[in-house]
Amino acid sequence: MATYRIDLAYDGSDFRGYAVQPNVHTVQGALEAQLSLHIPDIVTIVAGRTDAGVHATGQVVSFSTDHPIMPDTIMRSLNKRLAPSIAVSSFEQVADSFHARFDAIGRVYRYQILDRPYPDPFLAGRVWNVHHDLDVEKMHRVAQLFVGTHDFASFCRAAPGRSTERTVLSASWAKEGELTVFRIAASSFCHQMVRSLVALSVDVGRGKLPEDDVPGIIAAKDRRGGNGAAPACGLILVRVDYP
Amino acid sequence: MATYRIDLAYDGSDFRGYAVQPNVHTVQGALEAQLSLHIPDIVTIVAGRTDAGVHATGQVVSFSTDHPIMPDTIMRSLNKRLAPSIAVSSFEQVADSFHARFDAIGRVYRYQILDRPYPDPFLAGRVWNVHHDLDVEKMHRVAQLFVGTHDFASFCRAAPGRSTERTVLSASWAKEGELTVFRIAASSFCHQMVRSLVALSVDVGRGKLPEDDVPGIIAAKDRRGGNGAAPACGLILVRVDYP
Repeated sequence: MATYRIDLAYDGSDFRGYAVQPNVHTVQGALEAQLSLHIPDIVTIVAGRTDAGVHATGQVVSFSTDHPIMPDTIMRSLNKRLAPSIAVSSFEQVADSFHARFDAIGRVYRYQILDRPYPDPFLAGRVWNVHHDLDVEKMHRVAQLFVGTHDFASFCRAAPGRSTERTVLSASWAKEGELTVFRIAASSFCHQMVRSLVALSVDVGRGKLPEDDVPGIIAAKDRRGGNGAAPACGLILVRVDYP
Repeated sequence: MATYRIDLAYDGSDFRGYAVQPNVHTVQGALEAQLSLHIPDIVTIVAGRTDAGVHATGQVVSFSTDHPIMPDTIMRSLNKRLAPSIAVSSFEQVADSFHARFDAIGRVYRYQILDRPYPDPFLAGRVWNVHHDLDVEKMHRVAQLFVGTHDFASFCRAAPGRSTERTVLSASWAKEGELTVFRIAASSFCHQMVRSLVALSVDVGRGKLPEDDVPGIIAAKDRRGGNGAAPACGLILVRVDYP
């Protein structure tokens, strides 16, 4: 048996999320359909499932097979036959024990906001177009409250019985040209956590929510007092880290 | 009578070119359909018609009307109602004599190439994915032969009776991150000129055409000896200059 790692990027606009679902166009479904032309009984593991509309530049997938394969040949075939919204940047044999999800020690996400009154056709479906001026310095200060080990229940979709404690390694808001960009790194995230932290940050940045209210919202550990989730389209899984 | 200038950007993938045509989705058609909701008998003039699949970040359009209008209101309406593939960045009254096409003294185009074996989903439809290593320094040297006033008949789609003499102000090939980018500025261009110069440059850059053959190809003033045209998707009208 041999184990392989695939690094891929995708524009999530075209898909109903990462995870395979019957009768629906998903990234995993598209990838496994192509892989199955070369490899029998293919079952892949993904580092970070992404929701419908969420993008990835550095997603990682692994699988094991007894079937002899030539990664370079399959990579060329995938890039030729997959839709232009998915690209495989690397496909290689790794240690037999490698597991894309359980071995990951960190994930980095990026969220892109365009805060101006008119859209950018070249970023359609890849930014949240916010029609308010945002105080980026204030948002960056608030983001520092996310860093460390906290119970993020105020920012997670309920999953009864599962812990919502996570360790955020870094979080920042900064201007990048026309964009206002959030970067956050953590060992792992719970569901909708990044988009919920973005929604809170934007409410602070546009002056709707006082900065001083944020510690209380975090401490409440109750999503009902939260600020919803920012649209999926602005979110990108940038990188998955392994030891 | 008052004259107005509209600055717009569009992703050309969605359109069968700029110029209005019956029963076909074009940029001009989409723009005039929305403008006609506010302004009777609208006829617009464009600085640079672009072919099907060609993009623009800095296209300029002008029109004159006797009808009293509020540019800010119409700009908001356009950005709300037009497809996400078009955005209006500015809409303002200008001198009555302003003519987007005849007053333009320069146009700047950019051509984007991704020279690596796998595509980029975030640049799908916006780059030419060339599966060869390109010698960018050699391409840049060749581009210097384009600068100045020349008869570009070898690089223009035949238009009998029309001059193919043009003045190129600057031309460069350079790496920008993963991309190999051509920038060219001229007072004006003849049809398919930029894409034909790109095709020639790429043939040189990949070693298919000797650099020393280029002066002869230019001097031949005959497109039949040429190298075809690079795909439309890599081409972007960046800017139009006025005095």
